[in-house]
Amino acid sequence: MAPPDIEATPCCAPLAEARIPAEASGTLAQAFKALGDPIRLQLMSMIASAPDGEICVCDLTPAFTISSTTISHHLKVLREAGLVDAERRASWVYYRPRPGLMRRLSTLLAVDEPATR
Amino acid sequence: MAPPDIEATPCCAPLAEARIPAEASGTLAQAFKALGDPIRLQLMSMIASAPDGEICVCDLTPAFTISSTTISHHLKVLREAGLVDAERRASWVYYRPRPGLMRRLSTLLAVDEPATR
Repeated sequence: MAPPDIEATPCCAPLAEARIPAEASGTLAQAFKALGDPIRLQLMSMIASAPDGEICVCDLTPAFTISSTTISHHLKVLREAGLVDAERRASWVYYRPRPGLMRRLSTLLAVDEPATR
Repeated sequence: MAPPDIEATPCCAPLAEARIPAEASGTLAQAFKALGDPIRLQLMSMIASAPDGEICVCDLTPAFTISSTTISHHLKVLREAGLVDAERRASWVYYRPRPGLMRRLSTLLAVDEPATR
């Protein structure tokens, strides 16, 4: 399944400012669901903070005590949600973040700092 | 189940800057998972953008074509994740957002704007 081209859709103001359009909620919920697992959140974090802007699956797998098959499944969920891109080079797959969607989710959850009263 | 007191834990830098601590990933993933459903995301949006800072369940239910029992279940998931607070007054329950956790999730997903090169 191709990752959703969510960056092509003009969406969305912060949740605290305006109600999210129902038609946008499916794709955005898919991205949040992808982040809704501790292993996937840690994988996303390793990919997003990779010093070279990308990271080899061979450097992701040893960080966990679960099987490489399970890791691959989690990476596929992140990719299908549109949060990461994957590229095969020689024997390994390399992952990099798709910052556009992360930024969009971040904006959606933005809340003003409380005013001093 | 009481909502997690995530605001008491000093956590976390943006995913793009530092790897998330494994011990923080469970609670944060639970919050993302709660947002990972189109109905819950729309409910969260209605609660977060309520003009009076809170909204009656009697104003949430008519916005959807699903049963009030299902809506109640979704609201419970948001509450258990620490994203909303609920208060019963007379016949109705009123919901309001917990901005601290929303802000924390927003920070976690923050990405710098691309530099002009």
